Amino acid sequence: MTASASGNLVIGQSGGPTPVINASLAGILQKATKHTSFLNIFGLVHGIEGALKEDMIDLRQEPSQTIDLLATTPSSILGSCRHKLSEEDYERILKVFIAHEVQYFIYIGGNDSMDTCHQISELASANGYELYVAGVPKTIDNDLTHTDHSPGYGSAAKFVATSTRDAGLDLEAMGTFDDVTILETMGRNSGWLAASSVLAKECEDDAPHLVYVPEVSFDEDRFLSDVSEVHGKLGRVFVVVCEGIRDDTGRFIGEHVVTPTDKDQFGHTLVALTAGVASYLSNLVRERTGLQSRFLRPGLIGRDFSASVSEIDRQEALMVGRKAVDYLVEGDTAFMVTLNRQSNNPYSSDTDKVPLVDVANKEKTLPGEYINKTTNMITQSFIEYALPLIDGPLPPTARLKGVRVPKFLNLFKI
Amino acid sequence: MTASASGNLVIGQSGGPTPVINASLAGILQKATKHTSFLNIFGLVHGIEGALKEDMIDLRQEPSQTIDLLATTPSSILGSCRHKLSEEDYERILKVFIAHEVQYFIYIGGNDSMDTCHQISELASANGYELYVAGVPKTIDNDLTHTDHSPGYGSAAKFVATSTRDAGLDLEAMGTFDDVTILETMGRNSGWLAASSVLAKECEDDAPHLVYVPEVSFDEDRFLSDVSEVHGKLGRVFVVVCEGIRDDTGRFIGEHVVTPTDKDQFGHTLVALTAGVASYLSNLVRERTGLQSRFLRPGLIGRDFSASVSEIDRQEALMVGRKAVDYLVEGDTAFMVTLNRQSNNPYSSDTDKVPLVDVANKEKTLPGEYINKTTNMITQSFIEYALPLIDGPLPPTARLKGVRVPKFLNLFKI
Repeated sequence: MTASASGNLVIGQSGGPTPVINASLAGILQKATKHTSFLNIFGLVHGIEGALKEDMIDLRQEPSQTIDLLATTPSSILGSCRHKLSEEDYERILKVFIAHEVQYFIYIGGNDSMDTCHQISELASANGYELYVAGVPKTIDNDLTHTDHSPGYGSAAKFVATSTRDAGLDLEAMGTFDDVTILETMGRNSGWLAASSVLAKECEDDAPHLVYVPEVSFDEDRFLSDVSEVHGKLGRVFVVVCEGIRDDTGRFIGEHVVTPTDKDQFGHTLVALTAGVASYLSNLVRERTGLQSRFLRPGLIGRDFSASVSEIDRQEALMVGRKAVDYLVEGDTAFMVTLNRQSNNPYSSDTDKVPLVDVANKEKTLPGEYINKTTNMITQSFIEYALPLIDGPLPPTARLKGVRVPKFLNLFKI
Repeated sequence: MTASASGNLVIGQSGGPTPVINASLAGILQKATKHTSFLNIFGLVHGIEGALKEDMIDLRQEPSQTIDLLATTPSSILGSCRHKLSEEDYERILKVFIAHEVQYFIYIGGNDSMDTCHQISELASANGYELYVAGVPKTIDNDLTHTDHSPGYGSAAKFVATSTRDAGLDLEAMGTFDDVTILETMGRNSGWLAASSVLAKECEDDAPHLVYVPEVSFDEDRFLSDVSEVHGKLGRVFVVVCEGIRDDTGRFIGEHVVTPTDKDQFGHTLVALTAGVASYLSNLVRERTGLQSRFLRPGLIGRDFSASVSEIDRQEALMVGRKAVDYLVEGDTAFMVTLNRQSNNPYSSDTDKVPLVDVANKEKTLPGEYINKTTNMITQSFIEYALPLIDGPLPPTARLKGVRVPKFLNLFKI
């Protein structure tokens, strides 16, 4: 298949924002505005909802300064959505695309969004309508399959690693005046973000001391015993929990106060809307161990914070956007752009593509080799995988030799 | 009074850490290691607790690379404390200082710590012991009196401003899929940090839409009506609340689940240890308005995050440390270093000093002119005050012209 006809390009952003999803949009626009294949370039307002409502903006009217600035603008500037589409919806979308002579569709999103791309592509084919469809990967959860990692993850991981190190130093500084701090990370079904908390840990005493991911079922008694053990040894415990951890019946630990409004249109429980697992566990620690405990729940801050973006992540977000355009121009369709790691030191990557059907609705969880045997810590092999993605190692912090001054007050008996 | 005798210098850090309290320590050490007035330089381990326990480290044994690295190391590297001192404690501290021939004492901390400095200084005088005492200001709360602002505030404020802007863009991007986000900031009795959330707000529709500070009593019904009004207009509401907001009886709104262990040794309720005001208000919004609501509680992350430090703040933290040494060498004692603003554009400041007794245990709250008439937003005059302190304005983000593509699907009747 080759992209024979010139036509209009439509771009949309979907799912949870990231600090670099606009960089992918910038990459697409930098390339697409220079190709003759694309006549008009439209942006869907609030993702696929914009197609349903025929609500689109003319991106050719945006000045180049705006496009360049997108590379450093967090969140999803076109607007995003979480929309469960019906068969009727897909048909309406195709009608809108046909009416606006859309020949090309690029959707930046996660696994739900890749399913949307796939369905639209199939429907166009079935109707004999020539539509070239590209998916551009985006997820802080890093759960897309067939790609080494996804743009958005590195920056969110850098926020978690920095937060854990810095708040861990705070806990250490407070000595006997603080006991337990529990940091909650995002991640519905996968522990990639919670795992990233170890990326600035240099020795066993550094935070985090315990990490719990949803790939392993969570046991409260075991957790409390882990906390007591670490506290007995260090006098402090820095715990990282993924919001998606579940008990052995599959029930979210954070689901204690869930109401029907806590589910999105895909039927996923939005644990982010509950009081959260860290708050619950913090109470549990206080009640059951008598230790002081506080929780940290940055939530959305962790998926948008623009001041600690990974430059590797930003550059890759730009690259997957540009490459989506290149592949479309070459005549490819129904693919998602993927990232391949070329080397780790110095880090380099390039792109490839995978059929949409292979990634749609699939989830990549944390492999067993990244979780330690006692299922409360992350392994060195994960650090080797993830450290380059956060521009790691992080800038160093001072460590004191701490040579003690001899005590002689008791000798002098003053 | 002139600092006649050469003697040993003791330095301590106290209260909640900040991202730049170690920069003040670096400033002190850079100067003090070059002065002949100071023989040994000791660091108190965990602040005044280190004096009580005669637990000190020999800072002259730390290499200069370590000292330089302190300027970019978050948290309190000597260890901090929150210790309510008895008369007996003060006497013991003086004995330790005499035993170790301590002639100079520099304490980096907030208003509680300035009281500690003041008491020690008074006791030394009463005992005829020559002790030169300097306080170095440090607080993210910005509540120290007699200084334009305090080191630590600018960086914590920059984190709040960046978080609010970026998470606000996230809320905006999610359109109809999200309703209300409530960000909780630190601040026991003053709204300086909550106020800083407006520092990246460029127009009325930008986050935050509502800001509540403890200087004004908080009314739940009024809050719910504010939320409904903004939601009716924009379809979204970004709220910032200070952890210390209280009802008209003076009770903390975040105090609904307080237990006796939530109080520190100064008798302050540690609202940071409760489930928190944002969690409570988020539930209230859901129950009473039917809107979706989530809360963000970065907590300690906001007072330690090293990746978004204000450079102005870091430079001033270094400066107050250096100046404390200069003033001591000149023979001053029983003072806290203060910051004077010289000009706003370009921003510049220098230092002065104030007697410890004037700042000990005093709190500077947000002046009325910084709070709007409806007590739910911060005024422009605050922005003029605080923007330079966060290196503001923040790097710009892209804004789309957003020229709509004409809708013609209904005309074509496809």
